[in-house]
Amino acid sequence: MDFANRMYGIDSSPIRKAFELARTIQNPINLSIGQPHFPCPPNIIDALTKAARDGKTSYTLTGGIPELKSAMAEKYRTQNKISYAHEDRILVTSGISSALFLLFNALVNEGDECLVVSPYFLMYPAMLKFYGGKVVPLEESFKPEDLESLKSKKFKLIIFSNPSNPTGKVLSKEQLKALANLAENTGAYLISDEIYELFDYDNQFFSIGSEYEKTITLTGFSKTYNMTGLRLATILAEDKVIKALTTLQQYTVVCAPSITQWAGIEALKTDMSAYIQDYKEKRDFVYESLKDYYPIQKSGGAFYSFFQVPVTDEEFIQRAVKKDLILVPGFIFCDQKNFVRLSFATEWDTLKRGMIALQELSKES
Amino acid sequence: MDFANRMYGIDSSPIRKAFELARTIQNPINLSIGQPHFPCPPNIIDALTKAARDGKTSYTLTGGIPELKSAMAEKYRTQNKISYAHEDRILVTSGISSALFLLFNALVNEGDECLVVSPYFLMYPAMLKFYGGKVVPLEESFKPEDLESLKSKKFKLIIFSNPSNPTGKVLSKEQLKALANLAENTGAYLISDEIYELFDYDNQFFSIGSEYEKTITLTGFSKTYNMTGLRLATILAEDKVIKALTTLQQYTVVCAPSITQWAGIEALKTDMSAYIQDYKEKRDFVYESLKDYYPIQKSGGAFYSFFQVPVTDEEFIQRAVKKDLILVPGFIFCDQKNFVRLSFATEWDTLKRGMIALQELSKES
Repeated sequence: MDFANRMYGIDSSPIRKAFELARTIQNPINLSIGQPHFPCPPNIIDALTKAARDGKTSYTLTGGIPELKSAMAEKYRTQNKISYAHEDRILVTSGISSALFLLFNALVNEGDECLVVSPYFLMYPAMLKFYGGKVVPLEESFKPEDLESLKSKKFKLIIFSNPSNPTGKVLSKEQLKALANLAENTGAYLISDEIYELFDYDNQFFSIGSEYEKTITLTGFSKTYNMTGLRLATILAEDKVIKALTTLQQYTVVCAPSITQWAGIEALKTDMSAYIQDYKEKRDFVYESLKDYYPIQKSGGAFYSFFQVPVTDEEFIQRAVKKDLILVPGFIFCDQKNFVRLSFATEWDTLKRGMIALQELSKES
Repeated sequence: MDFANRMYGIDSSPIRKAFELARTIQNPINLSIGQPHFPCPPNIIDALTKAARDGKTSYTLTGGIPELKSAMAEKYRTQNKISYAHEDRILVTSGISSALFLLFNALVNEGDECLVVSPYFLMYPAMLKFYGGKVVPLEESFKPEDLESLKSKKFKLIIFSNPSNPTGKVLSKEQLKALANLAENTGAYLISDEIYELFDYDNQFFSIGSEYEKTITLTGFSKTYNMTGLRLATILAEDKVIKALTTLQQYTVVCAPSITQWAGIEALKTDMSAYIQDYKEKRDFVYESLKDYYPIQKSGGAFYSFFQVPVTDEEFIQRAVKKDLILVPGFIFCDQKNFVRLSFATEWDTLKRGMIALQELSKES
């Protein structure tokens, strides 16, 4: 008995492997985790439990509860300056991963070329390959003029995370406009994954959807409010895209978890600035601690630092483990094999121990 | 900009259309709904809110929390008599639809023939076609000897819901053994969708997994405890199947909603017999009310009755709407066009109004 052919290209996520590894070490310095270290704020928990007590345990409409869609439309209009945002253009999904899966499933045919800003969130190439798409990487440091030579190509989609997982890079407005321009020229869908939008330490973040109406904008609740286990995200896109994805969702998760949707409305009212400020200080601390030891750039957003190490990533990860330090190898995010990803979404104590370990590791060769 | 080819075969579920229709009628007699009318029991709500207050809002392990898997293994061993059930063989998913989607995605290649017991849950053919599978229907009234002629075929999978949505039929032990035998002979995966297992009014239900170890057994929480919006189900299968599906889940929903998983443990301890008894009485009432008006069989399980009407289903549905009665047309569940599905998961008042409307409708022609 065989599986479908598409299954033979996918493998367990190495991030999950790091997760398992961390469980085997007592008191690990775990800098591999892609989720905030702070708890989900209590007012969101209250909204969640209120929805449960009010009996909101049944299926919702496939596309999501109107109240959340309406609140999201308002958020897009005011915070992201996306003037055309309206609830008919919004689909509520069971987390960003679910949103990406719907999108790739709905869009990608065997052989389709897809432009992926690199380094990339590992799910993009994994799922694109699953459906037979071909990944064309584009270095995140690209200049607008670098895209000229690509205008004669035919891309099915262009995708990036902004701010970036794994590098923390915030794409500039010029870069984003150039990508939108390329999408328009090549007939590609432009997918802007903005799950880390609030983690923007130097006020550089810009939603390209505010300029280019055909953008497919992905917004998650997981990272911002530490609701990773509650599974909630939204997709903002043109009517016909939302309609098709909603139909597909009827046959996949049916609807996002009902009570999480109600909690999402409360989440949008929550002030997270103290947490963001804390992460900004951690971002600075990581940079200051490592800049004399590694070639490292200051992250603009998200809660990651991605830097080159003196040996292969796999070798470096093994050396780190001997110091109880857990990192994620860079090869899963790009074609390079001598980078690592560090998450600074953790307690100060852990982060400080991690910096000492990394300073020591830089001297081994 | 086009969608992927696979998207052009799928359409909005007509059940969802009925759902929308019901919203336009004041005080409708809605017998279209595929979920229990009773509330989710309070002890389950308590477990849900406790998990939220305890901060269980982060990602869980992809395969599900060990505590739920362990409780499910115990349930499979004691209630379903599946002696080999063990937590390594269990994957926790975001509802049965999600489980089916993982399975079809992981198993079905273009052109694969799949045996589907008919009438069938509409998602089976919809998703099989989505991945290029070919549906071979098998009448649910089949006799074991009818399968002899199929033994030379090569099926990728054999799937059925037991008890059945939409007919309420509970397959006999002999039928199930014959299907297992056919699976063994043809190398097919045997998928037993047991989401309605507790709705078994005459003690006929039998888990074929207890006899045939290669069975893929699907168990849901949604229908039993009215947790349809909370998204929880489990898959019990051979190790290698669970391993592959778990990998795929990393790239889809990542994990089932965390707090729902904790609530699931409590759900397993909940006595639902009073609700089941109420539905048994409703099952009898529907049969007694309609048997002199329509050719109808008494349902053995689930909460549906599926019967022939004197005109086409579409015509009958339209006539019913004029009496504020909402039903689901049979054509979406089988090749016949003169059946309707009625759900008796509703209040007595509504059900009584529905029976009167149906008695009146039988006289129109």
